[in-house]
Amino acid sequence: MSSMWGNKIRISLFGESHGKGIGVVIDGLPPGEPIDTERIAQHMKRRSPGFQPGATARREGDEISVISGFYNGKTTGTPLCAMIGNSDTRSVDYDKLVAKPRPGHADLTGLARYAGANDPRGGGHFSGRLTAPLTFAGAVAIQILNRRGITVRAHIASIGTIEDTPYDPTQTPEDCSERSLPVLSEDRGLKMRQLIETLRDEHDSIGGVVECMATGFPAGLGRPIFDNMESRIASILFGVPAVKGVEFGRGFKVSQFKGSQNNDSPYMAEEGIRLRTNHAGGIEGGISNGMPILFRCAFKPTPSIGKPQKTVNLETMTDDTVEITGRHDSCIVPRAVPVIESAAAIALLDILLED
Amino acid sequence: MSSMWGNKIRISLFGESHGKGIGVVIDGLPPGEPIDTERIAQHMKRRSPGFQPGATARREGDEISVISGFYNGKTTGTPLCAMIGNSDTRSVDYDKLVAKPRPGHADLTGLARYAGANDPRGGGHFSGRLTAPLTFAGAVAIQILNRRGITVRAHIASIGTIEDTPYDPTQTPEDCSERSLPVLSEDRGLKMRQLIETLRDEHDSIGGVVECMATGFPAGLGRPIFDNMESRIASILFGVPAVKGVEFGRGFKVSQFKGSQNNDSPYMAEEGIRLRTNHAGGIEGGISNGMPILFRCAFKPTPSIGKPQKTVNLETMTDDTVEITGRHDSCIVPRAVPVIESAAAIALLDILLED
Amino acid sequence: MSSMWGNKIRISLFGESHGKGIGVVIDGLPPGEPIDTERIAQHMKRRSPGFQPGATARREGDEISVISGFYNGKTTGTPLCAMIGNSDTRSVDYDKLVAKPRPGHADLTGLARYAGANDPRGGGHFSGRLTAPLTFAGAVAIQILNRRGITVRAHIASIGTIEDTPYDPTQTPEDCSERSLPVLSEDRGLKMRQLIETLRDEHDSIGGVVECMATGFPAGLGRPIFDNMESRIASILFGVPAVKGVEFGRGFKVSQFKGSQNNDSPYMAEEGIRLRTNHAGGIEGGISNGMPILFRCAFKPTPSIGKPQKTVNLETMTDDTVEITGRHDSCIVPRAVPVIESAAAIALLDILLED
Amino acid sequence: MSSMWGNKIRISLFGESHGKGIGVVIDGLPPGEPIDTERIAQHMKRRSPGFQPGATARREGDEISVISGFYNGKTTGTPLCAMIGNSDTRSVDYDKLVAKPRPGHADLTGLARYAGANDPRGGGHFSGRLTAPLTFAGAVAIQILNRRGITVRAHIASIGTIEDTPYDPTQTPEDCSERSLPVLSEDRGLKMRQLIETLRDEHDSIGGVVECMATGFPAGLGRPIFDNMESRIASILFGVPAVKGVEFGRGFKVSQFKGSQNNDSPYMAEEGIRLRTNHAGGIEGGISNGMPILFRCAFKPTPSIGKPQKTVNLETMTDDTVEITGRHDSCIVPRAVPVIESAAAIALLDILLED
Repeated sequence: MSSMWGNKIRISLFGESHGKGIGVVIDGLPPGEPIDTERIAQHMKRRSPGFQPGATARREGDEISVISGFYNGKTTGTPLCAMIGNSDTRSVDYDKLVAKPRPGHADLTGLARYAGANDPRGGGHFSGRLTAPLTFAGAVAIQILNRRGITVRAHIASIGTIEDTPYDPTQTPEDCSERSLPVLSEDRGLKMRQLIETLRDEHDSIGGVVECMATGFPAGLGRPIFDNMESRIASILFGVPAVKGVEFGRGFKVSQFKGSQNNDSPYMAEEGIRLRTNHAGGIEGGISNGMPILFRCAFKPTPSIGKPQKTVNLETMTDDTVEITGRHDSCIVPRAVPVIESAAAIALLDILLED
Repeated sequence: MSSMWGNKIRISLFGESHGKGIGVVIDGLPPGEPIDTERIAQHMKRRSPGFQPGATARREGDEISVISGFYNGKTTGTPLCAMIGNSDTRSVDYDKLVAKPRPGHADLTGLARYAGANDPRGGGHFSGRLTAPLTFAGAVAIQILNRRGITVRAHIASIGTIEDTPYDPTQTPEDCSERSLPVLSEDRGLKMRQLIETLRDEHDSIGGVVECMATGFPAGLGRPIFDNMESRIASILFGVPAVKGVEFGRGFKVSQFKGSQNNDSPYMAEEGIRLRTNHAGGIEGGISNGMPILFRCAFKPTPSIGKPQKTVNLETMTDDTVEITGRHDSCIVPRAVPVIESAAAIALLDILLED
Repeated sequence: MSSMWGNKIRISLFGESHGKGIGVVIDGLPPGEPIDTERIAQHMKRRSPGFQPGATARREGDEISVISGFYNGKTTGTPLCAMIGNSDTRSVDYDKLVAKPRPGHADLTGLARYAGANDPRGGGHFSGRLTAPLTFAGAVAIQILNRRGITVRAHIASIGTIEDTPYDPTQTPEDCSERSLPVLSEDRGLKMRQLIETLRDEHDSIGGVVECMATGFPAGLGRPIFDNMESRIASILFGVPAVKGVEFGRGFKVSQFKGSQNNDSPYMAEEGIRLRTNHAGGIEGGISNGMPILFRCAFKPTPSIGKPQKTVNLETMTDDTVEITGRHDSCIVPRAVPVIESAAAIALLDILLED
Repeated sequence: MSSMWGNKIRISLFGESHGKGIGVVIDGLPPGEPIDTERIAQHMKRRSPGFQPGATARREGDEISVISGFYNGKTTGTPLCAMIGNSDTRSVDYDKLVAKPRPGHADLTGLARYAGANDPRGGGHFSGRLTAPLTFAGAVAIQILNRRGITVRAHIASIGTIEDTPYDPTQTPEDCSERSLPVLSEDRGLKMRQLIETLRDEHDSIGGVVECMATGFPAGLGRPIFDNMESRIASILFGVPAVKGVEFGRGFKVSQFKGSQNNDSPYMAEEGIRLRTNHAGGIEGGISNGMPILFRCAFKPTPSIGKPQKTVNLETMTDDTVEITGRHDSCIVPRAVPVIESAAAIALLDILLED
């Protein structure tokens, strides 16, 4: 299989960028959960193009149509299917590129995998547009988690080398989702915006890091070895296009730590046992320890850039050059923030309901 | 479930550190594959304690007994079960610690998850000792991959802040498995050894990074979205205790790259289409592109350290101090190198056979 | 999860009888398979109401819209989603029944499972209407199987006590799908038709048995113990509403056989090793033996009958009587024949592609 | 995969009839469940050869060794592995048969599936001996179910054409496990015993049917469509060697019923809503309805018979004759009764814990 995820909650994504539509089936939701569609729309708007600096001008019109599994404003408990029709697709922009695989895209690997049968228009099933139904599914999961006292928030940790203030791993983070760039430090946000605009003018792009934290997640969920919390969260995060690295807690930095620095030591607090620090990102032995769940994902720069790039020509089988003329984000990280919140929410709900 | 992994190849790990034994069931192996048990023993020896500097003096006696699925020197195609009996366990070292959860261990999370029913001796099912049967399974997978032209190698990328020469991501890496520390630069290896010994003398520990590369893996395997190569490889890597971060290709560094730098551009080589660089780590759109598969894992420092540490006392429900007196690695990274090779080999074989 | 099936091919069904629509996502199809939509329509017409005697007069209008995974007349290899919009639903017929659970329906169990949140109109997600997208998925699978030399055919084995001529388990069966009742013996078909009409006039219903056979399925597929061919085929067949029994080969009759009668003995034929008989239904030790795959499913009578029936009243919590006034099949078995062919085809394709 | 089963509880079977041993890993058990090993031994004894009439004289010595997941008399919640060593295997009896596939066995299909690499001795992984660890797993599940008020009982419904009194589908059945043949009617049991002995004297064998019923299973568990209760129970039952048919409630008989006869009608009882009849076997729409769960499995006659049988010779590729001289059951049905109870218990525990 290619596009299904989950143990208790099962997500099945379908669709191609320039086909009839894209969508998701969510199987295993608890029944009777009220879902506020207005809140879903707000969450999805944060991902939609045009809302963030550096985003493509393409108007996606992410009008979600809920087909099933939703009755009288509540989940039924049977599969919830939601669809987004495609429009404004301008396939002509892409047609001439088929012979010239775009560097950094899945054009060559899609060819190898599907022997040329996959829909090449706009990236087809590989398109970042598939994150729209994923974000929808996450918006549903977030409401169910909230009702159980769990909050999931993310911000831009960095774009290029410009870093936002990191989350305090022991505290509920500030909600910065309403800002034009979701960052804690507005000053750093301004610098990020300038960097993004500079790169757009250079017909280039830039990568970044998203940091995400879930508070209120109970201790004792997950399990050791393969089906542990890190494995399950990472496996859905790497399903988000352009993610090339995932780390929990202090992540790669712990490789430079001594044990005496890194170990989170317990103490008796009024509310029960707490940990003085949270280097582990709320997970020890694959199981939640009651501290906030904290992780970061590295995003590569958008592969679609306006600059001419070297490639091969599959018709002539010679070296060639390609220029990508469509509309593209010079930085996808701002739009990726709600996508990561969504992926995390799906994973956490799956873990929560399974145990 | 907690301890099973895989789609086509299914690995089921069982056992506790100080119980009767530990082992693995490998389901889905192709039939008729000759397996050289001598090579398995060599591979497992690289993981065994005492063979590497900084390793625990505990003699694990990893005598593998193959119970099933192996006949006349070949895999049968039916489930292969292998067991390692436990001995020399000295449970007395651990008994007094039950009331005082060890910082950085799964003592508290295990308690929350299993309501006190799990075997606490030596970490029980959470023990790093469970990587022994995982390494066995990987040793089997490696031989099957080798027969198909695929090589999996790993080295210590760093211990603390001391870095080994990184792999060239476009070339088959040198085999450094025979060295006392598996590094490319013997000089850096010497410095790492000194650091490890210093920390042992300080009753402390240190983390590190393992870099792993698979060459010869064919293009066109894996798939987009959830069941992609990164997700599947990461999900097994995070199953290795102490791994807190996983990155592919240039990983977190790509967050600082421009698209024009990061995109791997194709060209016509004599042997077909190749890529000039391999920033993507051999994976584009979740699918292998024919370049080497490259990734790194961050290991936290061993939580077991000799220094006194703050903790709580579960009997008195007050703050307390714990001193861990057992034998422990001051750095597990050298022993983790064959474990990571093994986990990668299992994941790659699973992907290879599924498609 | 509730509505997903498969290892290599994954089917996800969604929708409710009287909601916006119903549909299916098929994940894992091989890429580049031409699919003849006209043949799909013909196959689905055999299931549609009004086409068979005893069928409901409701016009379902099973207009399938393929949303994704299909490009230039071929499968892309990425998830294929197909939808059928609902219309002509007359929910008013059902609304008054909510307080009075219908005997033989899932009204009470749906209430227990979903705490009253599931869509009750027309059976909701429990509706036999969900077999329409399943039949679509099977029609796709059948074309892919045909291209590999595998044929799947079914007929009505019996309705009530009237039995059709059974299939010869060693021969490719006659295609009777074009007949108004899919039976081998037109004379028996006539008697079945009379029985169905009698029961319709009595406002009652009747059960039956469907026999299905796949020829051309290669030997050596499947596996022993849990994931064997019988388990996988049975698990999808029991997913068809109203199926209460599944048997392979001679099925329940073998319980009365002696070993010397039942064992299928091999002999040397010109084309290789064949078996003299096929009591095992083409499966030995969970693995195909090259003989036709043969099985039967028992269908219970349609629970919706016009006669007054005893039930309880959930508002008054007293005994009560219910009369079902909607339009219903007095026998679903004729329409079930292509559904069973479809379910079998999906299972066989899943097994074929996995190995 | 071949030998794993389950969603929440995962069972992994391994081993070959004449290898070092056979066993099972049970993943996902709840922690802290006391397990009475004496009761397990009693349950397994009912399956062991020599204890029932018609059973092979081979002494299997099913000495179970629990390797992991069991501590201080309770489940730990981590994987429970149990092994049975093999002894008294007399492989010589089988060696000469390799060239002559035994009719009714998996010799030919095993060859096709595993290309000759599987262990042929005593049926290898196909052996009915693999039901011993399955029975162990079931014995564990039964104790956990009992603690939750659920009882699972089975009896011989028929051997050949001799039928025992059927269970009353609305009542807790009598426990007949202590009888030498587990039947309700001792008179019929006597006739069955005579039939079995006659067939043994004729060097032949006979099939039969096992009926199983679980009482106390709560309403509202399971789900519609694919992952329904019938599918899950049937999928594990067909994993028991020699099972060729599975039916729930009235099963194949409902194909001859009218709707007005078959529908189980609800009424108000003192303890809540009950059903007047239980033709559905406690399952409606794939979900439990609170009535006893009732099903039957058809067993084919033991394929190993002493009579000479026609077969082919794989060395000469000509027709030939085989005589099987080992020790074999002339009827496996008596020994199958606890196996079916076990398989049912595992399925019911999996369903119970998942929801």
